[in-house]
Amino acid sequence: MPEVYAARRIRLRERCNAGGSAAALISRPANVRYLAGAAPHGAVLLLGPREDVLVCCGPPDDRPVEGRLDDTLRVHGLPGAGGDAAVAAAGLARDQGIDSLAVEEHHLTMARHRAIASVAPRIRLADLGGAVEQQRVVKDEEEISCLRIGAEIADQALGELLESILVGRTERHLALELERRLIDHGADGPAFATSVATGPNAGRRGHRPTDRRVEEGDFLSVCLGAAYRGYRCELGRTFVIGTAPADWQIELYDLVFAAQRAGREALAPGAPCRTVDRAARQVLDSAGYGERLPSLTGHGVGLEITEDPQLAPTSMGKLDACVPVTVEPGVHLPGRGGVRIDDTLVVRPEADGGPELLTITTKELLAL
Amino acid sequence: MPEVYAARRIRLRERCNAGGSAAALISRPANVRYLAGAAPHGAVLLLGPREDVLVCCGPPDDRPVEGRLDDTLRVHGLPGAGGDAAVAAAGLARDQGIDSLAVEEHHLTMARHRAIASVAPRIRLADLGGAVEQQRVVKDEEEISCLRIGAEIADQALGELLESILVGRTERHLALELERRLIDHGADGPAFATSVATGPNAGRRGHRPTDRRVEEGDFLSVCLGAAYRGYRCELGRTFVIGTAPADWQIELYDLVFAAQRAGREALAPGAPCRTVDRAARQVLDSAGYGERLPSLTGHGVGLEITEDPQLAPTSMGKLDACVPVTVEPGVHLPGRGGVRIDDTLVVRPEADGGPELLTITTKELLAL
Repeated sequence: MPEVYAARRIRLRERCNAGGSAAALISRPANVRYLAGAAPHGAVLLLGPREDVLVCCGPPDDRPVEGRLDDTLRVHGLPGAGGDAAVAAAGLARDQGIDSLAVEEHHLTMARHRAIASVAPRIRLADLGGAVEQQRVVKDEEEISCLRIGAEIADQALGELLESILVGRTERHLALELERRLIDHGADGPAFATSVATGPNAGRRGHRPTDRRVEEGDFLSVCLGAAYRGYRCELGRTFVIGTAPADWQIELYDLVFAAQRAGREALAPGAPCRTVDRAARQVLDSAGYGERLPSLTGHGVGLEITEDPQLAPTSMGKLDACVPVTVEPGVHLPGRGGVRIDDTLVVRPEADGGPELLTITTKELLAL
Repeated sequence: MPEVYAARRIRLRERCNAGGSAAALISRPANVRYLAGAAPHGAVLLLGPREDVLVCCGPPDDRPVEGRLDDTLRVHGLPGAGGDAAVAAAGLARDQGIDSLAVEEHHLTMARHRAIASVAPRIRLADLGGAVEQQRVVKDEEEISCLRIGAEIADQALGELLESILVGRTERHLALELERRLIDHGADGPAFATSVATGPNAGRRGHRPTDRRVEEGDFLSVCLGAAYRGYRCELGRTFVIGTAPADWQIELYDLVFAAQRAGREALAPGAPCRTVDRAARQVLDSAGYGERLPSLTGHGVGLEITEDPQLAPTSMGKLDACVPVTVEPGVHLPGRGGVRIDDTLVVRPEADGGPELLTITTKELLAL
């Protein structure tokens, strides 16, 4: 198990060296966790030419950490409290005679960058850019297994909720209930703030649950995810409350279903990301909903709920096998409601059966 | 109500001007909310010599926002999606002929700072530092009222839980139950991840609830908080499960109680922050627990759960009236458990009765 972290660090260091830096300083928590097994609060990872060091601030027991630290990794703790591990790491690099250091400019604040430059003025600082994020895009089977389990947990939590009475309950209570069930079924916790949207709120992206109660005739859209061993996935479904959906509801649902299916079917190794987005988008666009669409059709998932790649009109880049993504188009009609359907899938070769669907709750329109 | 935001912006602009900058760019979300009433995702606030503008990225309805935007404030939306509002704001400043701009170097990443400098190369960029955080330290009565209500909500949620059966329930379930009750009693949501720690986990700072079940004889320590209209407070208590606490438990509890009381009693306008910390710390230190102590005794609260000032040995600065702070010393004995007692109080003049206690749940040791 620890070997996988060492292997990732070797790969990153090779990339750094190729880019002209002798060493790298990783500070973004998800990236530290990816390379070290765990990311204690404020810790940074120094990948040096001879050795890797996790630099932690504060007493080791002070804040519990998720994940399991690679115990082959040397840990350097700061004395006292309140120190900046990135500054301390730059000091270590300086003392080791390192002359060039790539840092995560998209994460370090200006103030921290100045502090690093100040403690190690002779070191040439470069930008690591999104090198670790890029390395994280393609998952190994162990990571995919964590996502698969997380999706199962989300499916179970949702399935149980659908067996209970929904009418009269508030969006907030349903969201809390879902989160309780995620934990009951073994999740670390929710992957993100669970969204439950009923009636005119349904289909609204990122809707925060309110005290509105579920009523007969409502669209009810739910979006939840489980974090399992740090890996996060997403599941979103829309239902109708009551015995018989209205015609406009069936029509809208069929449309979003068709858009989401088109997106899913476009997933393949080598497919350009914007092609997947366009496949879903044009189904909705040709029905007249072009103006109402969100900026992306889906995104990668992993140690963060939103990762590279993006499935958006402006995306560059192509999909690879073993890249997990969401496909989550939706339409929201203010004042009326709407539909969102969200799956997490893993891109797989056609020869292996095409994309692997992780979130298997039915996408048939259910009247509850 | 909107006047309060305009008044805060005027005060900040005056401070900027005194510091040599014609304009300021506020990007930290809590600071944007403090000055504008709400902080849409990714939005920044440009305080210019003639006008203030909230620069938002993405479609207005795409992500719901907490709080209520000051409607006297001009809003500039970015066309399309994925743009950086800070870069756009720098462009506006450039177009308005602004020659000096103070930015939040402790918030903007190096990458964003470079992008701003690149879009507006003639503007002299300076560091705003923690000017907004400093302005936020002393609260007005409206803000204190929100904290008071939040504390009431936390007291109610905890009070209800204590009336229920605790033995046999897991830490996770108790935490979820508390969070549900916070929302039932009107909180926006929890102020932070609720901590429930039982048996050997009790007294541990920042403990994340596990599947451990509450048992007879355990110490049980709970820390929760409510967010109400954006304002966050903290309440922490420790109990013993069962009919008769052991002698060592009574002794440890009395000690932490005495330390916390000493901290509370040291709160007064003009009191140095490190004096308050020392008052609590030396009670624990003189009983031999000096090595086990966390790095701070308490901290300010407001729109963020952890704000200036810090009550720590290294703190500079003094307290003022109307500054809300926590006083939260504790002792954790690995393998045995421990005690934490945490109140939110508002510093008030002695003549007005001394510090105002917001979290009024009894601090008597309860056997449950």
